[in-house]
Order: sequence, then structure tokens, then C-alpha cells
Amino acid sequence: MHDDEQRADDRAGDGRLDVVAVGSAIVDVLSPATDDDLERLGLVKGSMALVDLERAAAVYAQMGPATEVSGGSAANTAAGVAALGGRAGYIGKVAADELGDVFLHDITAAGVVTGRVAPVAPGVAGADVDLATGRCLVLVTDDGERTMATHLGAASTLGPDDLDEELIARAQVVYLEGYLWDLAPAKRALRRTIEVAHAADATVALSVSDPFCVQRHRAEFLELLRADVDVFFANEEEALLLFGVDRFDEALFAVEDTGLLAAITRGAKGSVVVTASGSLTVAAEPVDRVVDTTGAGDLYAAGFLHGLTSGCEPDESARLAGICAAEVISHIGARPQADLRRLAEAAGIA
Amino acid sequence: MHDDEQRADDRAGDGRLDVVAVGSAIVDVLSPATDDDLERLGLVKGSMALVDLERAAAVYAQMGPATEVSGGSAANTAAGVAALGGRAGYIGKVAADELGDVFLHDITAAGVVTGRVAPVAPGVAGADVDLATGRCLVLVTDDGERTMATHLGAASTLGPDDLDEELIARAQVVYLEGYLWDLAPAKRALRRTIEVAHAADATVALSVSDPFCVQRHRAEFLELLRADVDVFFANEEEALLLFGVDRFDEALFAVEDTGLLAAITRGAKGSVVVTASGSLTVAAEPVDRVVDTTGAGDLYAAGFLHGLTSGCEPDESARLAGICAAEVISHIGARPQADLRRLAEAAGIA
Repeated sequence: MHDDEQRADDRAGDGRLDVVAVGSAIVDVLSPATDDDLERLGLVKGSMALVDLERAAAVYAQMGPATEVSGGSAANTAAGVAALGGRAGYIGKVAADELGDVFLHDITAAGVVTGRVAPVAPGVAGADVDLATGRCLVLVTDDGERTMATHLGAASTLGPDDLDEELIARAQVVYLEGYLWDLAPAKRALRRTIEVAHAADATVALSVSDPFCVQRHRAEFLELLRADVDVFFANEEEALLLFGVDRFDEALFAVEDTGLLAAITRGAKGSVVVTASGSLTVAAEPVDRVVDTTGAGDLYAAGFLHGLTSGCEPDESARLAGICAAEVISHIGARPQADLRRLAEAAGIA
Repeated sequence: MHDDEQRADDRAGDGRLDVVAVGSAIVDVLSPATDDDLERLGLVKGSMALVDLERAAAVYAQMGPATEVSGGSAANTAAGVAALGGRAGYIGKVAADELGDVFLHDITAAGVVTGRVAPVAPGVAGADVDLATGRCLVLVTDDGERTMATHLGAASTLGPDDLDEELIARAQVVYLEGYLWDLAPAKRALRRTIEVAHAADATVALSVSDPFCVQRHRAEFLELLRADVDVFFANEEEALLLFGVDRFDEALFAVEDTGLLAAITRGAKGSVVVTASGSLTVAAEPVDRVVDTTGAGDLYAAGFLHGLTSGCEPDESARLAGICAAEVISHIGARPQADLRRLAEAAGIA
């Protein structure tokens, strides 16, 4: 059940939001798979591939019985912030269909304030007519690793006109999903989001999202770090690719050189937080069994940003990030199921 | 991933099916809830209520972030039989919408042969025009108990014309869901199913589904047991209501009096199998943590019927039934996630 009091608090508050996330609104379709299955389908384990409708249908037809859970990288982060008791907002785009209803229900019920996630009515405006709500086919192998084939559908039409600038301007942190750099209109939307965020003195945070995404947009991401971004998230592999180095210590030097606050995740090895005063290594939270790593990075970002916006130090924020990531990889789906606030309290984090 | 070899075997075989199930095709929408939530929504804990579209929307709006998983009582049983390596068929009705696609994908990918689950195209035939695929809002409390509000949608139109009689005639066991007695056209469809099954010398199995369902159809269910049914499933509460008695031993006497093969489930107390030669008590399979009891009875029936159709004795069939029920209550959703065949082998059951 959603927390009515929490929402009432938000409405009664000063209208400020801790984190506003912008990203592709997606429903995940998760199913177990084997390494052989991935090979047969031509999918690269651990990566996210964008696929057209035909290929999505072909992959789906080969998948086993599945579970549908709302996803979308930045949306998962927004849901995580809200689950921690933070005031979160989200901007994305779904179609006026059943999965669009599911996405809207889930993000609203999570306590996230949505800005113009309002469905695109089918039959209106040219490009949107035949687009269904975006879906991500997630194949989860026995080791808990997830491999994704995403058909963006309606999410691919996110552009500057879809931005709720008033919502963005209310944010303490504006969080951007690197995946959006694959789409020209979304890229324009993100540029505009950054302008609005800067004008409102918000912190701009970026996740580089995926190794292939880093390969596609390396120069632009580096330029963003130089000119526009205050905080960024990458995993080890993404950091190596981004800075064109082979060793983790080299990547850390490069991250330190940016002068930005950064969190570099390393799976079971935990994470390293880079601050103006040096690097801090934070151990991973122990997990009984890794069931499905979908959303690990997204919930890490949720915990880290909630820590920051609640006044925690970066190391404590990284510990909270690890707790959130550990919760989400212990079950199927990329949205939190346990009470994250209680987990944070149990760990002695505000 | 689905098992292509299994399906090929089925096609290459003698065309016989072990179990053909007929029921309401439903997608479950599962979300955690508290006892207070149930009270506020006016839902009776542990029961299934049929709701109209408006009430379904009102309940959904009050639910927290949810997970969508294919369900439907008899469909869960068919999926369970297929997961055990049995040859299963299913007859039900969905709409031509996204949740209909989800239902069809999941049951097919589970290895179940579907007869006329083919979606009702919207815009065709009067009554079906505005009906969406049926959905069951499942509120799961901390104790693992599930409380359900079902909007049948397209499933409510299942009638005699939707039966694939050739599929029914291929069955060794035809399994009927008691829930269908709530609907006049479905009741006619079930009457016809029983005729076809008897003509083909198939065993007719019935689940009485739900205590309220028993209250609504007590006289008819008793008449079915007298005249049409060979095997039946009830839980303890349903058995007491069905035979109008207060004590479990009285219910067992009444079950024995029917002369039918019956399995009466008792939750953590296991189950009692009643045969022509007396009653056998079978202990419940231990479960680390009961997460969600949705589908417990359905998967019990799957294990029991797969045992019977594989030549197991009733007590061994009940043990397999308990193993299947234990698997499905250990996670969210009413379809098996673990490899049931491996679990059966590990327990020394063919």
C-alpha cells in the first residue's frame, strides 16, 4: 500500500523535491535464461541492447514464462529515493495502453511525483500513433546476471516539449540516465533539463548507464563531466571505457582529475567514492543469494543520492547505496520490495 | 526459456494429453498489503471477491507498486503439470490486449497446449467489445496470505462455443475450476466439457476453488460430486462448508461417503487423501518462509494430477502435490519458478 501520509507531507511541504529523475519509462519483462539461450539469441551477457519491435517479438517468443515489473533505470532510482522517504519526482513517457497504466500506477504508488508521464493518447500526434509503452526483455541467468533487450516504444519520443520544467526547478538533485543519449530528441530534452537545473541551482547527476552506451557516447559524456555534471555514477567497466584506461587505479586517477563527486561500483567488491578530498572504498553489503541484478546500479544511485540530499557524508551515502543495491538484487525486479527506510534505520543511517 | 524438445515430444506423441484444464484466464497483479488495508478496502482476508471494473480501479488505485504475473486457478494448474513434465492443455479466454498477450505468452512458454485461448479481437462480437483481459488484484499480507479482487473482463464471456472439444477429448484428466460456476455461460461450457470428457472416458476432476464459491454453489457442487466428478479438491474450510459440518473428522466421513478420490488440503497441516480404501494423511513440505500463498491450491492440484497420470499411488501423488505447493508459496506469483521436475526427482518421485 502506498503511504498516504508521506504524499500528504510532500504536498504540504515547501514544494522542494530531493531528486527529480529523467529517463526512459519502461516495463520490465523478466524471465530466467541460460548462457546458451543468450548465445542463441545473439545477446551479450550483462549488456542492454536496443531492439526494434520485430526483434523484441522474436526474443519474447523465445523467452520462458515471465514476470512484469515496472522498470526504467532512472524511474527505479526515483522509486528507490521515495522508498527511502525522500521526495522524488520523475519525467518519462509511456503510451495510453495497459503497460502504460501499470507504469503510471507503480511509480505513483511508490510515492514519486510524476511530471507529464501522462500517457500519449494513441491516435493523436503523428509519430506516437503506433508506439506502445516501452518494454525491456530481461533474461536472468542462474548467476543473477541480467541481459536486456529494450524496445523503447513511446519512451523513444521523449523530447524537450515533454519536460515539466517546474518539476525540474523544484529539485535539489536532477538525475539523468545516460541511456537517453541514444536518442536525438531525448538528448535535446536532457540539454534543456541541465539548463533548467543550473538556473535553479540544482545539482546535476549523471549515470553513464551501460558499457556500450559509454562506447557510443564517450566524447559527449566526457564533455558533460567537464562542463555540466556535478555527480556521476559508473561501474568499473564503464569507468575504464570512459577514460580509455586498462586498470582500475588509472580509472580512479582519471575520476579524481574530473574534480567531481563520483561513485564507481564494483559489484561484489563494493564501491569507491571519489571526492575532492580523495577516494573512499566502501565494502558491498552481504547478500544471501544474488537472484537478479536488474536495478542494482539504479538502487545504488537512489541510496547515494538520498544520503547526499539528507545531509549524509559521501561514505555514509555509499553505505546506504550498497544496502539499497543489496536489497534489489535479492529478488526478481528492479524496484525495491523491502522497506528501505527500515533497512536504513537498522544500519544506523538517517 | 521454454523447452522446445518437450513441445516437440508432445507433437510427435500420440496426441494424448495428461491434463486439460478449463478456467478463467487471468493476469495477477500482486502487491504487499496490511490487514488494515484489507479492512479499509472491505476485502475479506484469504478470499476471492468478484469486482466490477469501477471497483477494480478503486482497489488498484489504493494498492502499492505491483508485480504482474500470469495466473488463473486452472491455468496455474496446467502450467504446474507442464513444469513437472506432464502434457497439459488449457482452455480459457483473454482479450486482444497487452495483458492478453502476456497471458498467452506465459502459458505457451510454460509448454501448455492452448485450445482457443486465442484472443477475442476487440471490435468483434457484441459483448466482448469493451472487455479487457481479466485481472486479479492480489493483496499479499506479511503472513503470506493472499486476498483477491478479481475483475473477469474477457474471461467472463467463456461459453460453450469457446470449447476446443478435440482438445478436451485428448485428455486423460479434465480439470475444472469451481470459480466458473459463478457465470451462466461458463457453467454451460463446463456441463458440455463434462459430456465430452465422459464420452472420451476421461477422468473429471473439480476444484471447489474458494469458501464463498462453495457457499454460492453448494447444492450444485454436491450434485456434481454425485453424478459427474471422479476426483475433487477442497481445502479444510471448503470441505466443512460443502458438507455442512463443523469438525474435520465429520467432513472426512462425508468425503469418504462420496466414494470419490479426493484431496483435502490443510495448509501447514498438510493434506488428507481420501480413497476407496480409506484416508491417508500426508505432511506438508517444509517451507523456509511463506512469501505468498497465491496458487498453493492450484499447484497442489498440479502435483496430485501429475502423480496420478504418471501412475503414482495417491499418497505419493499427494507428496508431489505438497512439494509443488511449497515451491509456489516460497515466492511472489502463482506459477512455478523452480524446476519442478528436478524437485520431484530429488524427492524420489518419477
